[in-house]
Amino acid sequence: MIGELPGVEVGQEYRTRRLAHEAGVHRPLQAGICGTMRSGAESIVVSGGYKDDEDYGDVIVYTGHGGQGSGGNQVSNQSLEDAGNAALVTSYLEGLPVRVLRGYQGDSAYAPDAGYRYDGLYRVTRYGSKLGIDGFLIWQFRLEAYDDTPTPQATQQVELPSAADQPGTTPITGNESPERITSTVQRIVRSSAVKRQVKAWHDNRCQLCETRLEVPGGSYSEGAHIQALGSPHNGPDTTANVLCLCPNCHVLFDAGAVVLEDNLTVIRDGQPVGALRTHVQHRIDLDCVRHHRERWRK
Amino acid sequence: MIGELPGVEVGQEYRTRRLAHEAGVHRPLQAGICGTMRSGAESIVVSGGYKDDEDYGDVIVYTGHGGQGSGGNQVSNQSLEDAGNAALVTSYLEGLPVRVLRGYQGDSAYAPDAGYRYDGLYRVTRYGSKLGIDGFLIWQFRLEAYDDTPTPQATQQVELPSAADQPGTTPITGNESPERITSTVQRIVRSSAVKRQVKAWHDNRCQLCETRLEVPGGSYSEGAHIQALGSPHNGPDTTANVLCLCPNCHVLFDAGAVVLEDNLTVIRDGQPVGALRTHVQHRIDLDCVRHHRERWRK
Repeated sequence: MIGELPGVEVGQEYRTRRLAHEAGVHRPLQAGICGTMRSGAESIVVSGGYKDDEDYGDVIVYTGHGGQGSGGNQVSNQSLEDAGNAALVTSYLEGLPVRVLRGYQGDSAYAPDAGYRYDGLYRVTRYGSKLGIDGFLIWQFRLEAYDDTPTPQATQQVELPSAADQPGTTPITGNESPERITSTVQRIVRSSAVKRQVKAWHDNRCQLCETRLEVPGGSYSEGAHIQALGSPHNGPDTTANVLCLCPNCHVLFDAGAVVLEDNLTVIRDGQPVGALRTHVQHRIDLDCVRHHRERWRK
Repeated sequence: MIGELPGVEVGQEYRTRRLAHEAGVHRPLQAGICGTMRSGAESIVVSGGYKDDEDYGDVIVYTGHGGQGSGGNQVSNQSLEDAGNAALVTSYLEGLPVRVLRGYQGDSAYAPDAGYRYDGLYRVTRYGSKLGIDGFLIWQFRLEAYDDTPTPQATQQVELPSAADQPGTTPITGNESPERITSTVQRIVRSSAVKRQVKAWHDNRCQLCETRLEVPGGSYSEGAHIQALGSPHNGPDTTANVLCLCPNCHVLFDAGAVVLEDNLTVIRDGQPVGALRTHVQHRIDLDCVRHHRERWRK
């Protein structure tokens, strides 16, 4: 199960991996990553098992799974074919939350004194490979705590190497006056279960232009509400109100450069350019289509 | 000036528009929107001047400028050609913060008792047109308070018509158990001054695929850091470390499906597919190019 577990509070401690397993917080007894390529990662354990890990409390640089010898050194390359690593890529591509547990092992300032502690939900904001300390390829995942996830107490002060990427703040350099710190969030795409269903039906292929973005470890698309949620549009959060689009078509659709007719003809800049590709299980709510179109009347 | 003003606190009150003008918080004496298509909107005044406005405190549905007769009714259509409306479109496209002032007029529960109050930074999350109450076309902009902008006190309870789109929370419907509320933020693109400079040089045209997304009221591109900011990559926040990309190429670049050689040849899925388009003023930092490429070694 992805996300928060009913009845499990942030800060909850488990004396052993087995107790965390029984609580469902982190199900495997050995593996650091719980999850599959299809579902994404449910949870990870940060326990100092990889020497390239970095722990800054609300930001964690987490080394993927695999390639270790019995002594804890890397002895071969890691791969995104590994189920755990592929799960973390899916979490990144789908924007899914990952439960983080910290174990007592290792030298993280945020490790509990003993046992394991559930530290809340993080999201994967980036990943990539590098040559690790032992000279083999490793994959690393940057996880950031959600804004409402409290930062655990540190036993010592640990500062991020650069303050330039604190979530939500972008310091401006260059010809700007230094007082002018502008935090700008441009586009937030949330991937709910409803959107994931639509994306699965279309196998991440854009219903408008057939683009499917292939990236190492997976493919990427976005779920786009036809009639926007929230005031003043108040569209429903149902699969019949969601399209599977590539990011470019998502921008065009959300800004009214593309609208649909009731027969699902695609109108771009006022001209019909083809038909929306559909899927037998994916009913489209024509009220929503009409609402979106009306929103961009000229 | 876009963003917070030094020395101006959220909640600061101004007895008159002139005092707000002198403080630089909202510079025009009459117009509700301060800004231009080029720079974006600096500030707006919410003061009940348009009957289609809605005010929910941290969410505002703000009617654009124009088309009003002397009696305050709409007597003609509004247009995105209007400088103020075009400014709000730019704020949306660039992800720029807008200062919000509330005036004592109108029937908003969040209006101050008298004068004008600076209520902090909001972002434009959506816009569109509709037939207003008076039967003419109006343009409306949804503004949402930044997470760290405090919500002003309401004199009465006002609830959003749908709770489905509170920033940061997406309730899941369908076949999910209702306890499972998963908040997932997938992709956040911040548009700093550095990125805006790069996007201006390239006139919003993608340096990889030449796409330029045209939408009503403007065009759209994204600034993409070559060497990612923050740990473990720690790239510099400079124009030499930023590319102007369309959203699709941004996804591909950030996930390593596209890398650059030192001579700026574009490598996609391991194959050279062309050269990065450059601009005479836009120097590219080859250290950053190398760092990005190394991050995706296989």
